[in-house]
Amino acid sequence: MSGREFFTAKTVAEARAGFRPARRTEPEVVVLSDALHRVPTVAIHTAGDLPGFGRSTVDGFAVVASDTYGSSEGLPSYLDLLGAVQMGRAPEVAVRPGGCVAMPTGGVLPDGADAVVMVEYTATTMPGTIEVTRPVAPGAGLVRADEDVPAGGVLVAGGRPLRSPELGLLAAAGVTSVEVRARPRVAIISTGDEVVPPATEKLAPGQVRDATASALAGLVSEAGGIPVPAGIVSDDEGALEAVLAGVLPGVDLVVVSAGSSVGTRDETAGAVAALGEIWCHGLAIHPGKPTLLAECGGVPVIGLPGNPLSALVVFRLIGVPLVWSLAGCQEPPPEPSVVARLARDVASVTGRLDVVQVALRGGTAEPLFGPSALLSVLTRADGYVVVPEPATGLDGGSPVQVTLYR
Amino acid sequence: MSGREFFTAKTVAEARAGFRPARRTEPEVVVLSDALHRVPTVAIHTAGDLPGFGRSTVDGFAVVASDTYGSSEGLPSYLDLLGAVQMGRAPEVAVRPGGCVAMPTGGVLPDGADAVVMVEYTATTMPGTIEVTRPVAPGAGLVRADEDVPAGGVLVAGGRPLRSPELGLLAAAGVTSVEVRARPRVAIISTGDEVVPPATEKLAPGQVRDATASALAGLVSEAGGIPVPAGIVSDDEGALEAVLAGVLPGVDLVVVSAGSSVGTRDETAGAVAALGEIWCHGLAIHPGKPTLLAECGGVPVIGLPGNPLSALVVFRLIGVPLVWSLAGCQEPPPEPSVVARLARDVASVTGRLDVVQVALRGGTAEPLFGPSALLSVLTRADGYVVVPEPATGLDGGSPVQVTLYR
Repeated sequence: MSGREFFTAKTVAEARAGFRPARRTEPEVVVLSDALHRVPTVAIHTAGDLPGFGRSTVDGFAVVASDTYGSSEGLPSYLDLLGAVQMGRAPEVAVRPGGCVAMPTGGVLPDGADAVVMVEYTATTMPGTIEVTRPVAPGAGLVRADEDVPAGGVLVAGGRPLRSPELGLLAAAGVTSVEVRARPRVAIISTGDEVVPPATEKLAPGQVRDATASALAGLVSEAGGIPVPAGIVSDDEGALEAVLAGVLPGVDLVVVSAGSSVGTRDETAGAVAALGEIWCHGLAIHPGKPTLLAECGGVPVIGLPGNPLSALVVFRLIGVPLVWSLAGCQEPPPEPSVVARLARDVASVTGRLDVVQVALRGGTAEPLFGPSALLSVLTRADGYVVVPEPATGLDGGSPVQVTLYR
Repeated sequence: MSGREFFTAKTVAEARAGFRPARRTEPEVVVLSDALHRVPTVAIHTAGDLPGFGRSTVDGFAVVASDTYGSSEGLPSYLDLLGAVQMGRAPEVAVRPGGCVAMPTGGVLPDGADAVVMVEYTATTMPGTIEVTRPVAPGAGLVRADEDVPAGGVLVAGGRPLRSPELGLLAAAGVTSVEVRARPRVAIISTGDEVVPPATEKLAPGQVRDATASALAGLVSEAGGIPVPAGIVSDDEGALEAVLAGVLPGVDLVVVSAGSSVGTRDETAGAVAALGEIWCHGLAIHPGKPTLLAECGGVPVIGLPGNPLSALVVFRLIGVPLVWSLAGCQEPPPEPSVVARLARDVASVTGRLDVVQVALRGGTAEPLFGPSALLSVLTRADGYVVVPEPATGLDGGSPVQVTLYR
């Protein structure tokens, strides 16, 4: 069962820092309603000022600020009411010293005004005259024409996934389509003579349905990629090489899951070596040690361990950031996490990263042990805790950062 | 500018606990590859045991555990090698006391064996005889036929969004389609005479492009809903009532954003009151006070404040959990968060929830102040900090929980 030794083990940190294929997906243009979480190729600027005109932020009266200095409840300033601004229309009147104009929130600031006093700090005892009972400074109660983003300013950065508020800001600037990188296409190949499609109703003895491919497809989608199911290949180096060679031209990343075996099958290393270069075979991580990272004709290839749990742990740590980087994003969006108290001691081995599944009960993180062969360990988990390489374990009762699944 | 007073202000906690429309979307069946983050209507059980057969979790030899008791490097147990199990096939030989069978990881445990000893703890010095140099306990090196999930056991719970590992477990059990609740359809109506579509190239004085609708659509999508753009309605109660009446029958939630005005326009309250019941008008939250919650013919309606920033703050806290609950999920998936040190004092007012936008610089959370009229405050923010109702503020330097945008 042992075979050629390609093993050049790396730490997870080394893999993340060193295994950085240069490949990026092609640019494409999408409309704003399809742009959520997509990654713009370059920064997008606004042609004109935003909001584009001086705007009241309160209901009240546009004034010359200096007219209000020294005013109080006992000694109000008296201003002539010169008119009113209508929502969505240009002002028909300007403000002059000693005068004021009624303003709705969001209305266009009339010429001559440099502040808006809130209606709460005014009174109207004589028709045509407004009493101001508090002084306002210039700039109060308004936003300047260029205060949101000045003309030529950056609306959104390139290389960062668009979030909801960015969609709003683009819409405000009249940008209704965006050049983003195409969603990375991720081929998912399962290997193993014992592995059969999930739709198989009746299993022969020793057969298992392919669980890993469906779970990996979920993680690929979450990372903004397009899962490309590439089927199940038997334990045969030639067969795998043929399938690999067939999918490589049409995808941006290939993931080979080693069926239900604990190790990356030798066939994976052999087939990958025939088509490209192996960057490392073996990661200092538990579970997930028998991971293979390679590049075949510019396309990164990840050979995952056979146990579904190990495969998903490794793909989350190594594959997900890779999918984002293929889309031009170097810093993947933050993952949910929470600080909890570890329910009991967790042992580890110095020099490897341990990924411990945990269930949360209130503020306590209960480690879920059990063979990596069991997917139910993952489905019972709310998240995971990492024991860093130098540590020999974590003490029960200590606070730990739990990265949450969603 | 003031109008009828519908104000019955509630706290955010009261709104979340008390405004819980009973409506749920209809069930529909989706294939596994479309089921990520969808919410199953009921728990799904497995027909048969998983993995379905006793399975080795190591490369080694299937044995009768008691045969290995007392064995050591110096005094190994000697076992007859009776044969080998092939991956994905039924064993052709059973284990009897004094004998063993070679096993690949994932292979079917032969009859008679109750443990698998790892190949590392064996030696082969005579052909046909295996030396075992460490004792193993019954159950070691294997998973039982029902250890992942026993026949009839729960694969996934109802009412909780499916995560990637759950897709894997369902696939393993041969479940390739799932009954889930339909994605909630969320109508997004913008109001305001000054509001024009984002595609408007040249703005007339006082006009603004509709930013809120695009940003809200992003939040709706993130929550698993389908945004249904329902256009821009002028400041006219009758017009809004007509649009509301038109969209209500086809959606599960209606969101009315009040254009660029600071308050929920009076038109919203009037139109909603004509078609249903107002649950509250006014939330003890800053920004976002002028929020309206209502139910019209069983469909929840949220009237949002006019400033885009306020509207998004409120929709995130009130609307997003509502979209999940419409899909049958009472506990939305966790949001990313991080603990950071507040860069400076933040003032608040007792009795209201303050939502403060922050930018993260290393471990420091820098509060972003500025008028709620500015969307760029949100696009510069990495997340937000909440000042709870009883507090009068947060001290600079204190650790705060930052909920991160993604």
